[in-house]
Amino acid sequence: MPRSRARKAEIIAIGSELLLGGRVETNSVFLSDRFASLGVQVRFKTIVGDDTRDIAAAVRTAARRVDIVLLTGGLGPTCDDCTREAVAMVTGRQLRRHLEAFDGMRRRLAAWGRVPNRAQLRQALIPRGAEVLANPVGSAPGFYLSWRGCFVAALPGVPNEAQEMFDSALIPRLAELTGQNRPAITRRVLHTFGLPEAEVDQRLTGSLKNGRGVRLGLLASPLGVSIVLTACPSRHANRRGVVALDRVERAVRRRLGQSIYAQDDQTLEQVVGHQLAERHLTFAAAESCTGGLIGHRLTEVPGSSSYVERVVVTYSNRAKIELLGVPEKLIARHGAVSAEVAAAMARGVRTRSRTDVGLSVTGIAGPDGGSDRKPVGLVYIGLDTRGGQDVREYRFHGNRQVIKLRASQAALELLRRWLNGIEKTRPRTAAHPGHQ
Amino acid sequence: MPRSRARKAEIIAIGSELLLGGRVETNSVFLSDRFASLGVQVRFKTIVGDDTRDIAAAVRTAARRVDIVLLTGGLGPTCDDCTREAVAMVTGRQLRRHLEAFDGMRRRLAAWGRVPNRAQLRQALIPRGAEVLANPVGSAPGFYLSWRGCFVAALPGVPNEAQEMFDSALIPRLAELTGQNRPAITRRVLHTFGLPEAEVDQRLTGSLKNGRGVRLGLLASPLGVSIVLTACPSRHANRRGVVALDRVERAVRRRLGQSIYAQDDQTLEQVVGHQLAERHLTFAAAESCTGGLIGHRLTEVPGSSSYVERVVVTYSNRAKIELLGVPEKLIARHGAVSAEVAAAMARGVRTRSRTDVGLSVTGIAGPDGGSDRKPVGLVYIGLDTRGGQDVREYRFHGNRQVIKLRASQAALELLRRWLNGIEKTRPRTAAHPGHQ
Repeated sequence: MPRSRARKAEIIAIGSELLLGGRVETNSVFLSDRFASLGVQVRFKTIVGDDTRDIAAAVRTAARRVDIVLLTGGLGPTCDDCTREAVAMVTGRQLRRHLEAFDGMRRRLAAWGRVPNRAQLRQALIPRGAEVLANPVGSAPGFYLSWRGCFVAALPGVPNEAQEMFDSALIPRLAELTGQNRPAITRRVLHTFGLPEAEVDQRLTGSLKNGRGVRLGLLASPLGVSIVLTACPSRHANRRGVVALDRVERAVRRRLGQSIYAQDDQTLEQVVGHQLAERHLTFAAAESCTGGLIGHRLTEVPGSSSYVERVVVTYSNRAKIELLGVPEKLIARHGAVSAEVAAAMARGVRTRSRTDVGLSVTGIAGPDGGSDRKPVGLVYIGLDTRGGQDVREYRFHGNRQVIKLRASQAALELLRRWLNGIEKTRPRTAAHPGHQ
Repeated sequence: MPRSRARKAEIIAIGSELLLGGRVETNSVFLSDRFASLGVQVRFKTIVGDDTRDIAAAVRTAARRVDIVLLTGGLGPTCDDCTREAVAMVTGRQLRRHLEAFDGMRRRLAAWGRVPNRAQLRQALIPRGAEVLANPVGSAPGFYLSWRGCFVAALPGVPNEAQEMFDSALIPRLAELTGQNRPAITRRVLHTFGLPEAEVDQRLTGSLKNGRGVRLGLLASPLGVSIVLTACPSRHANRRGVVALDRVERAVRRRLGQSIYAQDDQTLEQVVGHQLAERHLTFAAAESCTGGLIGHRLTEVPGSSSYVERVVVTYSNRAKIELLGVPEKLIARHGAVSAEVAAAMARGVRTRSRTDVGLSVTGIAGPDGGSDRKPVGLVYIGLDTRGGQDVREYRFHGNRQVIKLRASQAALELLRRWLNGIEKTRPRTAAHPGHQ
């Protein structure tokens, strides 16, 4: 293969369950990302069931049209798992027990206090002439070989195994093929919250859109609108691609400003957590309608125990009164879903936990519990700090899951804006404690 | 095509954005479900970019191996949209403006107060001899034709358009092909927790596997192992398919017994929530390493406010002492991650909230904080009821996210088993409060 042109790849995902409906295939999304960053153009993805002949047919077709064929799935211990057999069939290379693969598997199982059973022994069968790809996570090894000028690799279907193995074992091999040592940046994603998709679209129209070697796309979800910048494939794997991305990113940032809360794989909980840790601030939350989702999200971040002191999910009024000291009369007068109660919850959780920041959410996630005055989707979010309070009213649309997700995102975003000095808390007043 | 055998289908999803990563292709999941219910076996899915020759190659390959080729995407008005050209190229049928398609589009745009522009006129181009599939939602019509004994249909890529058109326009055509008038039940999924995949596999081997008209597959995730039963396409779309599924389901239930916690789309939090509601039991939880995930999961279920009284995420030792009354000395002696503290947390949250059931989780989610004696993944779960306590020790593998997920699942499963009378709580002892 000449070194100058971009390599073409095909991903073949194996598993009858992927064809039955009800299940989305996600590995290839990760793998496409990685290929793109290596300057490899993914031209086809094929999904095929646990059928030796179908897999063999897919590999044969792929080898005719691309340079790199990556298979995922079908490497497990059961008789359904026939990727090994299919590759052996199509390449004419017999399966044999591979010592390295066998030892690796035995060591891994031994660490878990187990010995390989008969079925698992099948996992050490590798086509003759193939190299083994060690699996640092699970028991199934992968392999790769060269056939008819094509690089053919097989990885397990379990997402975290496939991802770990791609990064640790395959990238070095692919780097040799592509002459690309380090993954190049070919895509950048900027995440916004608080602007409707149409508004983001309008702010980015004109010369910015799809010009100058960078393709621009929008992706809307309950977590906000993300702007996807992709350097054109013919140029992406080099310095020019990065320069073009930098230029367009600056332009997008100018037009969207503080609405951008994170970039690429970063999550809002990581951004907020990083700032809390760096500034040695401690945090507590009182959740009602989000039910623990804010706590769950914040504690997905390693090291979050240094700033998350506690979270209370005060789902009942009694819990709000007992755990947060919200006055019973306040709930009776304004209702549990009110700016006043959100303010009292945020203050209560902060003072009782003696933390620097208190965050609260109270709302109606639905499908029941709404009324004309307080419809499903009405959410109040309170932020309490030493400097004062900020309470906001929101009206979210969607089902219960979406409303919970949007409310958790809005709460973390309010915190981010306060941490960044974009928003300030104001002294509490007796009449309307923090309500604005 | 003879009427007796099951038809085979291939779905070809078209769009360069589907190959770039960052984006999951979801149409084919819906379409697979629909095909399955029509007794059609989806054998391959292919994803290909906006490239006329690549699409043509994919159609040619598909037509050789299946009876029905369904294309989605590439029917829009821009020059990127080249599905029409690709089908024309591969079938040798020239594109011509189709009057019915043109009129339909014009009427639809007129209803929106617009006239077709030059680009949109391209959407009325249909290969000669093809029939038009009206689009009741958007502007792009679809089409279908017969080529080399193969049924080839093209639908837009926008999910709700593709789904509407499949149901309204394609199902009647496919029904003629398959002799199948109504969608039938073809799949059942049983969810287990607590058994390793190899153990589930072993219990289900023998005559049960892939025999008697039902195909059996296993799906492992941090939430457990699911058993997918699929009625074989040749027989499934009728009463016999349902009978076969019932028979195999009974056999699977006999072999896996109480490890099965739910079926089909049901989640463990729904199962547990349903029982709590039905028995008028109230619930409180004290989470440490799961960080709010148990509360989040339980409150995803509508109506959960009738049994979830409160959840406290006592991430710090101080919160455990203040909110749950865990003795400071107990933490000092045994450590926060211990059976003793799990027991005290469960008891503390139940008595303080005055609920019927208290559940607690304390563990090390990692990546830091582990030691030789207490490694990452060590988790204690406590259940406290009026009748006594049950405390369990677990050792989970995986990264932080996976450990949190498994721990939340194990906790809800312990609760389910108690609710079902499979496990009982035992009177507390002073020395080892509930530890076993």
